[in-house]
Amino acid sequence: MIQIYDTTLRDGTQREGISLSCDDKLRIARRLDELGVTFIEGGWPGSNPKDAEFFERARDIPWQHAKIAAFGSTCRVNGGPEDDANIQALLEARTPVCTVVGKTWTLHVSEVLRTTREENLRIIEKSLAYLRAQGRRVVYDAEHFFDGYRADPEYALETLRAAVKGGAETLVLCDTNGGSLPWQIGEIVRKVQAAVRHPLGVHCHNDSECAVANSLAAVHEGAVQVQGTVNGYGERCGNANLSSIVPALELKMGLRCLPEGKLKTLFEVAHFVAEVANLAPDEHLAYVGKSAFAHKGGIHVAAMRRSETSYQHVDPALVGNQMRVVVSELSGRGNLLSKAEEWGLKVGEGTDVAAVLNDIKALEAKGFSFEAAEASVALMFARRKPGYRPPYELVDFLVAVEHRSGRGLFAEAMVKVRVEGEVHHTAAEGDGPVDALDAALRKALAGRFPQIADLHLSDYKVRILDGKNGTAAVTRVLIDMQKGKRRWSTVGASPNIIEASWIALVDAVEYGLTLADN
Amino acid sequence: MIQIYDTTLRDGTQREGISLSCDDKLRIARRLDELGVTFIEGGWPGSNPKDAEFFERARDIPWQHAKIAAFGSTCRVNGGPEDDANIQALLEARTPVCTVVGKTWTLHVSEVLRTTREENLRIIEKSLAYLRAQGRRVVYDAEHFFDGYRADPEYALETLRAAVKGGAETLVLCDTNGGSLPWQIGEIVRKVQAAVRHPLGVHCHNDSECAVANSLAAVHEGAVQVQGTVNGYGERCGNANLSSIVPALELKMGLRCLPEGKLKTLFEVAHFVAEVANLAPDEHLAYVGKSAFAHKGGIHVAAMRRSETSYQHVDPALVGNQMRVVVSELSGRGNLLSKAEEWGLKVGEGTDVAAVLNDIKALEAKGFSFEAAEASVALMFARRKPGYRPPYELVDFLVAVEHRSGRGLFAEAMVKVRVEGEVHHTAAEGDGPVDALDAALRKALAGRFPQIADLHLSDYKVRILDGKNGTAAVTRVLIDMQKGKRRWSTVGASPNIIEASWIALVDAVEYGLTLADN
Repeated sequence: MIQIYDTTLRDGTQREGISLSCDDKLRIARRLDELGVTFIEGGWPGSNPKDAEFFERARDIPWQHAKIAAFGSTCRVNGGPEDDANIQALLEARTPVCTVVGKTWTLHVSEVLRTTREENLRIIEKSLAYLRAQGRRVVYDAEHFFDGYRADPEYALETLRAAVKGGAETLVLCDTNGGSLPWQIGEIVRKVQAAVRHPLGVHCHNDSECAVANSLAAVHEGAVQVQGTVNGYGERCGNANLSSIVPALELKMGLRCLPEGKLKTLFEVAHFVAEVANLAPDEHLAYVGKSAFAHKGGIHVAAMRRSETSYQHVDPALVGNQMRVVVSELSGRGNLLSKAEEWGLKVGEGTDVAAVLNDIKALEAKGFSFEAAEASVALMFARRKPGYRPPYELVDFLVAVEHRSGRGLFAEAMVKVRVEGEVHHTAAEGDGPVDALDAALRKALAGRFPQIADLHLSDYKVRILDGKNGTAAVTRVLIDMQKGKRRWSTVGASPNIIEASWIALVDAVEYGLTLADN
Repeated sequence: MIQIYDTTLRDGTQREGISLSCDDKLRIARRLDELGVTFIEGGWPGSNPKDAEFFERARDIPWQHAKIAAFGSTCRVNGGPEDDANIQALLEARTPVCTVVGKTWTLHVSEVLRTTREENLRIIEKSLAYLRAQGRRVVYDAEHFFDGYRADPEYALETLRAAVKGGAETLVLCDTNGGSLPWQIGEIVRKVQAAVRHPLGVHCHNDSECAVANSLAAVHEGAVQVQGTVNGYGERCGNANLSSIVPALELKMGLRCLPEGKLKTLFEVAHFVAEVANLAPDEHLAYVGKSAFAHKGGIHVAAMRRSETSYQHVDPALVGNQMRVVVSELSGRGNLLSKAEEWGLKVGEGTDVAAVLNDIKALEAKGFSFEAAEASVALMFARRKPGYRPPYELVDFLVAVEHRSGRGLFAEAMVKVRVEGEVHHTAAEGDGPVDALDAALRKALAGRFPQIADLHLSDYKVRILDGKNGTAAVTRVLIDMQKGKRRWSTVGASPNIIEASWIALVDAVEYGLTLADN
């Protein structure tokens, strides 16, 4: 059993652009506990007062699997833990586990701590011993271990021995600057194990794009704990990515690290964390990316249809992901048909597939992209089917955003549609121009289509395709609409962001009123 | 000297969302040649007719460093290369190098090719021998080599021997499904080298997030060629990332792979390729990401100021990148001052730094993010400086987008500003609402500030912060404005995308009229 030590809530939040509220942190912690990680590092109470609230509230939660850990550094030089604010903050967090980081690298001892090698050994041992005496389990993070070992192996080992004397249950070797390569990590872990017989862990950063490989190399040499973050979030190039490490340990190295049956929730957890952290999920992540098992190349798709395993390193279902066929301008008829199948579209009854393919290519040339907009493609199939009648036609629209000093900001829209020959002309306000258009369109259609009230606009994404043209650049809009549990995506593109949004919105509603129920 | 074989233009374009015109491909190829890679794989003439034009036009370019390669597969089973359309397309590309991919894995021989092991060996040897006879240098890509070797090592070696008989100058072992781990790659490369004494290369995919480590492991065991793509673009999780592999080879393994002095252009090349491929650069990429050497955590920044090397694995200048200090809500006064220094802001003359810090935190709570908007921060400093007078005040604005059947789409804006007590009230049209606002604002200010004509809006980015609220979500807008070579960024955020854009636009112009020249 390998210990998974998650530091998404501490080291992960060092990533540029991440900022988590206390509620966000608790939501993520609950999901990590459900996933079954061994430790959840909640924060650094000594450096970030906001974290105190997290530990306060975490205490009342009945954790099923995980132990909550608080992070802090060794006490000040020439001082004792008992009167050290940072160590006291660790105690006040009242977590079962305290993780203490100390210096390994002589450069840091002299340049950053500005003290002697002996004093550094003293504060490591004393800080840990003090927390142990208060009944805490103590994990020791040896900062810059690999750089420090390269500079002075004997002193690096002494710092570990000081930590063992202090009562550390695990010695975590940190590649803090992320500069090491896998065989270097492997060799040093092997030597440390021979010199210091004590459970080892590893904490890697991704500055050489080797953090996952480095973590796996350490486990391959006998490390029993891996520290990392969901999706590899972290400062600079990120921390070791647990979303890639956990499946490798379980599926490729045969090492259990999660409770039975939890691995298949990984995709969901990875996306949940991205959502709460308010970051667009990286679709190209190993195992958990939406594209991780997506096939675009023509031959690949042909081969896939003959032998599923021939182009997949693992079964996507094992991590809760799925195989996808991508529609793109590289696609032939084969991809398009697989895609139609995948979406359960009834093709064939006189549908002109070649015409649909041409429609797609023409729109892609204008900046549309259908890879994530299956509902738009479904509508294109439907419109090429003899006898399809759209539920409504758009006549006109007008949207205005106005700022008047003293009175503030307004967004209003007017929409005119024709339903079975009859014109409906309405207006509405909204939080912004697209919101106002959405409201006006619903008003215009509500009479003939009361079920429109069940359609819920659940996501709205905007991408500027060619920054070089400034505000005249082509804008691509993706809209997700929902009806109960059913969810679909549509796309629009135009140099005018309002028009792009309008196209996606109109398709999303048309799909909801026609095909969503099939 | 390690050979760098770039397949950005072939395997890289398999990434979802990438589509390159022939001009794009030629622009990228020229930059790769300047960078000094050994081979540039331009495409697959047999599968993608559009590539024929690339090879046609590439012939007239005087390449300084790189050899152009065309990619194709072995000839059809039970046929000969002389009447094989795909092999003939390779010849017609008239490149100095042809790269031929063949089957290693018995599963693929029987399931995908549906032929015998002997016939597969025959088509490998014959296809290569035919191209050699036409005077081409031939690289052999052994598809699924590592999976194939695990399934049947002896047959995997036979396919390589067939390629050697056919005249391959290099045997490239491909981890096509990207499922291998570094020590597995290392061990197999070692064994292959012992069995087949011939120059080896490696072609990895990133499905285990180990493509970089796997490529380096192969070189560590003696491989002399690495195939990959700029920024790791490629199908699914991408190809091996040359932007991480090249610096590791040169800076960490002491192996030369680029001409003298070229490594420091890597950052520029990586961003150029992202730009041409029309993908937002991943700021967290190793070595070439904007965040790769950015420091956010308070202690780190304090330590950085004491010892530059203590938190950097390599000197960022070696790859053309630079160290950055990040402004964020985690920042203390220290970060903010370092940042101010970095931007050459004159702070201190009575500027209320604490107040600026509070302004930043208040706006970040509303969805602003200043990490990429140094001009907005500079303005906040300026506004907190006694005696700062903004060049103009905004009074009102109105923007309307209108679609009328038969007449099409219009975007118009009205702007009212006050300059030194005098009100200027103007209107203008644009391609979209923000473009119209930009035009109207320029008109309103042109009288008093003719220099506004030199300000050029060079980039416009939109990010929806909280998709869950649909069209009512908070929108963040980043605007880049330029004056000659000087370029600055501003940010705006609001549930109304027009207002968010307006805030960023107004700041960008105010900065351009006041601080840009200091």
